[in-house]
Amino acid sequence: MNVPGPLNFKPLDSSSEPDGAGRVIIENVWPEIDGGRTPVKRVMGEEVKVWADIFCDGHDILSAEILYRAEGETEWQRTPLAFVEQDRWKGTFPLEKNARYLFTIEAWRDVFGSWLNEVQKKKAAGQNVASEITEGVALLEKAAARAPTVKNILADVRKEEAGSDSQLDILLDPVAAKTIQDAAERGNLSRYDRELVVIADRIAARFSAWYELFPRSMSDDPARHGTFDDVIAKLPYVRGMGFDVLYFPPIHPIGKKNRKGRNNALKAERGDPGSVYAIGSEEGGHDAVHPELGTIEDFRRLVAAAKEEGLEIALDFAIQCSPDHPWIREHPEWFDWRPDGTLKYAENPPKKYEDIVNVDFYNEGAFPALWLALRDVVMFWAKEGVRIFRVDNPHTKPLPFWKWMIRDVTRVYPDAIFLAEAFTRPKMMRALAKIGFQQSYTYFTWRNTKAELAAYVTELGGDMGEYYRPNFFVNTPDINPIPLQTAGRAGFIARATLAATLSGSWGVYSGFELCEATPLPGKEEYLDSEKYEIKAWDWNRPGNIRAHITALNAIRRDNPALHDFRNVLFLNAWNDNVLAYARLTPERDNCVVVLVNLDPHNRQDVSFEIPLWEFGLPDHATIEAQDLLGKENFTLRGKVQTVALDPATRPVFIWRLIPPVSQSKP
Amino acid sequence: MNVPGPLNFKPLDSSSEPDGAGRVIIENVWPEIDGGRTPVKRVMGEEVKVWADIFCDGHDILSAEILYRAEGETEWQRTPLAFVEQDRWKGTFPLEKNARYLFTIEAWRDVFGSWLNEVQKKKAAGQNVASEITEGVALLEKAAARAPTVKNILADVRKEEAGSDSQLDILLDPVAAKTIQDAAERGNLSRYDRELVVIADRIAARFSAWYELFPRSMSDDPARHGTFDDVIAKLPYVRGMGFDVLYFPPIHPIGKKNRKGRNNALKAERGDPGSVYAIGSEEGGHDAVHPELGTIEDFRRLVAAAKEEGLEIALDFAIQCSPDHPWIREHPEWFDWRPDGTLKYAENPPKKYEDIVNVDFYNEGAFPALWLALRDVVMFWAKEGVRIFRVDNPHTKPLPFWKWMIRDVTRVYPDAIFLAEAFTRPKMMRALAKIGFQQSYTYFTWRNTKAELAAYVTELGGDMGEYYRPNFFVNTPDINPIPLQTAGRAGFIARATLAATLSGSWGVYSGFELCEATPLPGKEEYLDSEKYEIKAWDWNRPGNIRAHITALNAIRRDNPALHDFRNVLFLNAWNDNVLAYARLTPERDNCVVVLVNLDPHNRQDVSFEIPLWEFGLPDHATIEAQDLLGKENFTLRGKVQTVALDPATRPVFIWRLIPPVSQSKP
Repeated sequence: MNVPGPLNFKPLDSSSEPDGAGRVIIENVWPEIDGGRTPVKRVMGEEVKVWADIFCDGHDILSAEILYRAEGETEWQRTPLAFVEQDRWKGTFPLEKNARYLFTIEAWRDVFGSWLNEVQKKKAAGQNVASEITEGVALLEKAAARAPTVKNILADVRKEEAGSDSQLDILLDPVAAKTIQDAAERGNLSRYDRELVVIADRIAARFSAWYELFPRSMSDDPARHGTFDDVIAKLPYVRGMGFDVLYFPPIHPIGKKNRKGRNNALKAERGDPGSVYAIGSEEGGHDAVHPELGTIEDFRRLVAAAKEEGLEIALDFAIQCSPDHPWIREHPEWFDWRPDGTLKYAENPPKKYEDIVNVDFYNEGAFPALWLALRDVVMFWAKEGVRIFRVDNPHTKPLPFWKWMIRDVTRVYPDAIFLAEAFTRPKMMRALAKIGFQQSYTYFTWRNTKAELAAYVTELGGDMGEYYRPNFFVNTPDINPIPLQTAGRAGFIARATLAATLSGSWGVYSGFELCEATPLPGKEEYLDSEKYEIKAWDWNRPGNIRAHITALNAIRRDNPALHDFRNVLFLNAWNDNVLAYARLTPERDNCVVVLVNLDPHNRQDVSFEIPLWEFGLPDHATIEAQDLLGKENFTLRGKVQTVALDPATRPVFIWRLIPPVSQSKP
Repeated sequence: MNVPGPLNFKPLDSSSEPDGAGRVIIENVWPEIDGGRTPVKRVMGEEVKVWADIFCDGHDILSAEILYRAEGETEWQRTPLAFVEQDRWKGTFPLEKNARYLFTIEAWRDVFGSWLNEVQKKKAAGQNVASEITEGVALLEKAAARAPTVKNILADVRKEEAGSDSQLDILLDPVAAKTIQDAAERGNLSRYDRELVVIADRIAARFSAWYELFPRSMSDDPARHGTFDDVIAKLPYVRGMGFDVLYFPPIHPIGKKNRKGRNNALKAERGDPGSVYAIGSEEGGHDAVHPELGTIEDFRRLVAAAKEEGLEIALDFAIQCSPDHPWIREHPEWFDWRPDGTLKYAENPPKKYEDIVNVDFYNEGAFPALWLALRDVVMFWAKEGVRIFRVDNPHTKPLPFWKWMIRDVTRVYPDAIFLAEAFTRPKMMRALAKIGFQQSYTYFTWRNTKAELAAYVTELGGDMGEYYRPNFFVNTPDINPIPLQTAGRAGFIARATLAATLSGSWGVYSGFELCEATPLPGKEEYLDSEKYEIKAWDWNRPGNIRAHITALNAIRRDNPALHDFRNVLFLNAWNDNVLAYARLTPERDNCVVVLVNLDPHNRQDVSFEIPLWEFGLPDHATIEAQDLLGKENFTLRGKVQTVALDPATRPVFIWRLIPPVSQSKP
């Protein structure tokens, strides 16, 4: 038999000679995004579930395997796919490393297995199978020619009379049959026409709790510029609330030319520290630290102290430059100049941003020198032990730059994580994730009603979740959410609870835990923004929600159901001011139920359903539960429960359901 | 500025040098099936609507074009895509030939257009734009270097003072601006990474009415074998009912060895003509005609006479061979032989089909000689003027064969149409369409309830409709639908109406118009099946529905809304025994409303909605209508209408809605 090579069908073959390839069809492979153009993202230690439609003409039995390897490995590893139903097959392969993986699929006609099936059916129908036995022996001979493992079986078969039942008995012996099947020809082997990419990140890419602060505000004295040592002194405060990642806005020297004053004033007053985003001065650029914060040695001590405390430092990667940035002098070809010889400032006509200028990635002379220099900035900080980068406004820089840079850095530091700070049109948000960002800011701060939240979380958890990992920041230095400005403490508790329990990663910008919300009047911004001045906070301000945040982060750590973001099950709750949802592990061995009162001013009574059905329990069943905020255990009777959510006392509930052991799936 | 080549992003680039390509993102292109692996199907004369997400970092204005060409043309033709909303763009290109088309997309930063936009915004804000004018002139100079069309503009501009408003006025002149824009640099040009295939078939591939008959039964005398001349005498009968395609089961010599008798008896009696599907005898094989039907010259006269009558002949392409087929002697290597030297019969263990043997497509010696021979059978009949082939059981032959064969034949005869007679698992049904079959049998005969019909038609009209074109046969020689066996005349009218008005193509096997439904007891088959014997029909049998079928085919011809199958709009109808739907052209200039009583035994009263909203009319509006079966015109008042569907008198309604002229879209 002529077995064509492992090609699948091509849409545009133009030869008039058939190549015969592609007899066994492999299609509709999952996970595959954008026809295989977009890698999917997973976490090291997981199994990738792979699905495919696999079929062929006729009645032959088929077999199929997943071929997978980590980048850099030359040999494919193989693991079987199993038939499920209606031509659908399923298998899994493990992600053992923090690396990029490739996988594809091979499928073939199981020639010996088909023979087995046929001869058994005929024998069961009482037909004479002497001829079929001879055929089976011929298949065995072919297999023996390629695999020594079946030579003994062939020797045994040859001792018996040709076409005899004794020969058949040997061939039908399960152990022998399996050995022959494995060694036999793979008829009409097809290979899927793409090698699909799965990126196995470390878990922090999906599950992390971020805290953002301005190091220069850590002196607790508005008259004194904070230092890295002041930050070291604050580490127990941050870690005490249970955060994993401590993120700083830019820590680089700040330009003096056109420096912004307080509240974004066009002109700085004497002593104003300027915007941390106006990066670069005669003291250095993106690979320098602002002298008032300390030295690079001080920074190293901070990184080490944070690590000691269980915190990972994340830095800001903001590409714009102040007019004093050394690159402007050293590499004028990286910037845009006007015909009159002046530098072009950042602008969105008619708006102008006169304390920063942007590089031009495609300028003659900037490509690729600038690209390499920017990558090397990241590499510089990675070498200093920083492996998480929050990237400022990535959507205003070319996507090919990010794609290449992230790929290049993660080849050396596979544990590097880039968080895209884009708040722009949905398709650009998605594209940034598709081309490599491991984590993304979201529209969370603008999703407030029950319908908005449910729709958005559902969208994130669908196909989008294959490549886009949300980080729900409750606030940022740029976003003082309008609803929080009047919500009071109950609103802060509600939003923190939503962020911490609806997303794998969530983030807090300091002040949130103190319920700070004083706006620039009429704006979504903070009054006296820390972006332009040094602040001092009263960390024990009355009414703060530090205890609630601490509880949230502890609950997150202790409950595996909260370690992903694609397992949210919204629950029927007969009150449009109450969002109710469950989070469940695939094995159903951990289940957290959350109720949030979205109305910060009024008590809301609600009847809602607890997901008894997920454990195979009837609607009238009882189930044990634990109040994860209050800690007491209790028994719930029946599917519909009623609670009161009072802003003054208890605006949210978080329960763990404890099903009878026999009801969690293996 | 350095403009990288027209590449889009690649998932697996492993160089550490950036290539800079893909700055302008092109993704989510439509129509694209299976990531571009499956061609989409359209009809010659149509416009292909193309959609894509196109976006880029920053605020520059983008432009985009569809590139398209018919296969064989070397130059791309270009037509613009226009921005719609949210990064979504749309355009169309025409299918002028019966050919395969390729298309792809290019998009780029419109450098001059972006400059125009910027300078106009700044001017509107009262800013000084002298520097911007100088930049605009520089762009003009670049454009002039490549396009003589802008040289005059440049000459005019140079007469004015540099940076002056007079220069700006020249650049802002709409005609000049458009000329410069067209000539100017295409910044960061991206090309989509796939060339997508669109097959432009002739309309018959999507819209046709088939009639199937056995030529040997056309003598109207069961004792006399019908001839091609007898068929010629029946052409007015078939065309009189309005059919377009006249399809014959195999017309080739029939084997004698193991010939089947009446009702599929294992042994034929003397005089039994055998199954037409046992192809091949000493009188010839697949390129011969059965001598009792006539000669090849007689067949040619039949083809010509049918054409004269407005009918197109479709032949059966059934690959199996009788044991007497000449190929078995001439090409034993194309068949499977048992070790004992006997031929393997077709079988599905433990079932055996002893009057036919199957070729083995991948036998040593059969690949590719057999493939070429089978293609040449089709080419033989195509040369005889046959361009429609109903392919018997294609799912039991290798898909690569069909893919190659259909591609190869249509390269010579682009008007060739292959109808896949597969009744098998859904994914194989779809795969046959994906790899080339222009038309497909369906599950229609097993979709009888309102819910089944609506779900199935909706499925066919979705993404599946991009490549799969249904032909709703109401019966076949193999399928005597169980519900029709007891439905009586009203049931036949209902099923004919459903098939003719829910699918672009529909088909009738002769006898249906006479309401023939006598089954093999307990089976979905006809008693005394014509497959095994010569029948004589009373073409004027009382109770026949010829007049209704004639009306259906006339209505189909006259109403463009019925020429596609993807425009079915199911209507609210408050009776589960009544299926109500509208068919609408995209322009809303033709609208047919159909009501079918699915209960053949009882009168059903139904209130239902006519789709006033499709014409922008309010629920209380009046609309003119025409009864397409009764011919009278009338006025409908309001959205909800009530009718009675009585099996005895009127089991179906077919109305044409005639909206006020101003309400149909341009």
